[in-house]
Amino acid sequence: MGAGAQHQAGQPLLIVLEETPVVGVPAALEEERAVAPTITMEIEELAAAEQVVTPWEVSAPDGVDYDKLVDRFGCQRIDAAIVDRIAHLTRRPPHRFLRRGIFFAHRDLNMILDLYEAGEKFYLYTGRGPSSESLHLGHLIPFMFTKYLQDAFKVPLVIQLTDDEKFLWKNMTISECKRLARENAKDIIACGFDVERTFIFTNLSYLGGPFYENVLQVAKHVTFNGLRGTFGVNQEDHIGKVSFPPVQAAPSFSSSFPHLFPGDDQLRCLIPCAIDQDPYFRMTRDVAPKIHLLKPSLIESRFFPALQGESTKMSASDPKSAIYVTDSSKQIKAKVNKYAFSGSQASVELHRKLGANLDVDVPIKYLYFFLEDDDELDHIKKEYKEGRMLTGEVKQRLIVVLSELVARHQRARAQVTEEMVDAFMAVRPLPNMFG
Amino acid sequence: MGAGAQHQAGQPLLIVLEETPVVGVPAALEEERAVAPTITMEIEELAAAEQVVTPWEVSAPDGVDYDKLVDRFGCQRIDAAIVDRIAHLTRRPPHRFLRRGIFFAHRDLNMILDLYEAGEKFYLYTGRGPSSESLHLGHLIPFMFTKYLQDAFKVPLVIQLTDDEKFLWKNMTISECKRLARENAKDIIACGFDVERTFIFTNLSYLGGPFYENVLQVAKHVTFNGLRGTFGVNQEDHIGKVSFPPVQAAPSFSSSFPHLFPGDDQLRCLIPCAIDQDPYFRMTRDVAPKIHLLKPSLIESRFFPALQGESTKMSASDPKSAIYVTDSSKQIKAKVNKYAFSGSQASVELHRKLGANLDVDVPIKYLYFFLEDDDELDHIKKEYKEGRMLTGEVKQRLIVVLSELVARHQRARAQVTEEMVDAFMAVRPLPNMFG
Repeated sequence: MGAGAQHQAGQPLLIVLEETPVVGVPAALEEERAVAPTITMEIEELAAAEQVVTPWEVSAPDGVDYDKLVDRFGCQRIDAAIVDRIAHLTRRPPHRFLRRGIFFAHRDLNMILDLYEAGEKFYLYTGRGPSSESLHLGHLIPFMFTKYLQDAFKVPLVIQLTDDEKFLWKNMTISECKRLARENAKDIIACGFDVERTFIFTNLSYLGGPFYENVLQVAKHVTFNGLRGTFGVNQEDHIGKVSFPPVQAAPSFSSSFPHLFPGDDQLRCLIPCAIDQDPYFRMTRDVAPKIHLLKPSLIESRFFPALQGESTKMSASDPKSAIYVTDSSKQIKAKVNKYAFSGSQASVELHRKLGANLDVDVPIKYLYFFLEDDDELDHIKKEYKEGRMLTGEVKQRLIVVLSELVARHQRARAQVTEEMVDAFMAVRPLPNMFG
Repeated sequence: MGAGAQHQAGQPLLIVLEETPVVGVPAALEEERAVAPTITMEIEELAAAEQVVTPWEVSAPDGVDYDKLVDRFGCQRIDAAIVDRIAHLTRRPPHRFLRRGIFFAHRDLNMILDLYEAGEKFYLYTGRGPSSESLHLGHLIPFMFTKYLQDAFKVPLVIQLTDDEKFLWKNMTISECKRLARENAKDIIACGFDVERTFIFTNLSYLGGPFYENVLQVAKHVTFNGLRGTFGVNQEDHIGKVSFPPVQAAPSFSSSFPHLFPGDDQLRCLIPCAIDQDPYFRMTRDVAPKIHLLKPSLIESRFFPALQGESTKMSASDPKSAIYVTDSSKQIKAKVNKYAFSGSQASVELHRKLGANLDVDVPIKYLYFFLEDDDELDHIKKEYKEGRMLTGEVKQRLIVVLSELVARHQRARAQVTEEMVDAFMAVRPLPNMFG
């Protein structure tokens, strides 16, 4: 998993930038084109000012252009019809991340919905690269959304913690990566996943057996040149960077989990992730038919912005850039008041006259992610945009929303025991996983 | 493990040649030179007529020049003093493979002997790529020699079966590779290894946990360019070829086997292998100090020639090129009489006058490997060289020697049960492994 990450939606720039030179954004793949025996991926050199989105780097000086990204990657947009269909099929209102277009793109989501409607099962796969002690709010987004999907569709979920990847990319010992994976698992469990339907694993403990077989199947069908275009590795990189991508691909295939899906290598997989992880699964989808397995479907989110705005890094090494799940109410208040980029005008008078620029205003963006009430959100946006509400008032509302969210998380996290981690990580059957 | 192979000594050319373009023989490495964070290996382009020796190809139109190879690889020759020392330390005569210079080169063997003399322990590591149903005589050589080392030094042994490598390099399914690994394990067990001191494992079943951690440690310190020079991979190769070499490196470190050596990551390792496997362990020795582990020592053999002579392939796909352990006495007799290249003269008269050319005579080379009695071997060589013995007589003696050897192997192989395979492969402590 990238630091960018499947599970760390919301890092407009990457922590390990200096270690991972990125050549550019890969062009959209023609997935179905027969290019046996190995995938061929085209690469498009980009001017320095253009956006770069790979699993290890998201760089967009003018903000990420998601339309461009969808076109380049070759995925599809999630439209109102799909959102309505999900609501209808699951008999519950769509998650705010869906109805507000935060999860905005997909691959073969309609196929999953068609099959679900016809009574067929599927499973969910998401994950996280355990690179830091405490998560920030951006890290929670895919997990919050995955929990919704699990509850709504009543399906099993596998969560991959890529401790091996963090060892390969970062200056950390293996034992430190293992420790962080376990600590991060506690935060993930605190999101409320159902232990009856959820298997959490770390690569350092689970890789082997049928999982390793799928890693090899994928590796046999991807060339170094293919990776170079998609992931930006080069010949002077260590080979761990070359051998890792198939490890993130393997959970897309149900045969990697014989204790969950014995004898079933054709169970469909749906992957909720941030769109920077798309290259992994484009690669996976290219390989799948060659190894007689099913392509995973994807549902992909936008990035969660840094406090300083879309074009700034939200980084584990810069505590001012993000709200962490370990922050106190006081810290949240101070960070929001001090660092959250405001779209209001230079003076109160001017603001009353011209109103706020919502396109760049971070408090509004954060409320968009985390304030559940659509009516209240619309009201705040309208009042703020038209100058009747001041940035301090919007921030005040955001501080309350975030403080509640973080306090709730902290209470849940405090209840997660080592035994609970062991229970989620036990390699075991889940007899009621579709119940 | 290469088809060439750590454990398939004696393939002057490679089976998977068409799949594995080889750039050339790597130049000797300056192992101790600090080139952190990744190894740098120089590559020397060779004229087509020169010898090429990599784990996947051994090509030498004029016969392998071992002196050149030792110089290029940067290993040391085994001299009479080392052979005497081993005899002295183990209180038994040196194996004929040692006293006849078949195992002829080494790395840090003196250090292992020094430490052994001082009472320190070590373990043995060898292996095989399970690419064919039945082994030929060349495949047995490293195992025969390893058994001698195990018995003489009373040390534990790990045997790696690289079923993953065979899947990556050859057009075989994973389940076929697994089946061949198990069948080959039976032939290996039939060589007489002590189950109290031997752990046999296949990568597809054992890779994971602490073993995978060591794979990652190695991978993090080897670049694609480093591999390209040593192993001849290129950018259009699938990445499985890039990710495999650390998997062959990992058994060189005792921490890969916590059930055997709990808490001990500093137990020294001695690797008996054919010299074409040297690149793997040159890479391993380069990385070892960077990951604070010990460099493995090596003891390396010449290749076993094909029936047609040194410059011909001995191939699983050409049954005429080799004696297999499944051959009947009748087949052995027919193959030796029909295909074994003779160094005798064109006519009996000429032979009586000029004598045989022992340098090219395959029956003599085979007797050199397999006839135990030094005096008889010397006698035959003398008589044959001076024209008093005819090629038919030498072949007759060889047929007897090989028939006995193969029949003995077949009897032992017939007694190997599935339960015995399970016993050797069980992940278990070996409480008497140094006993």
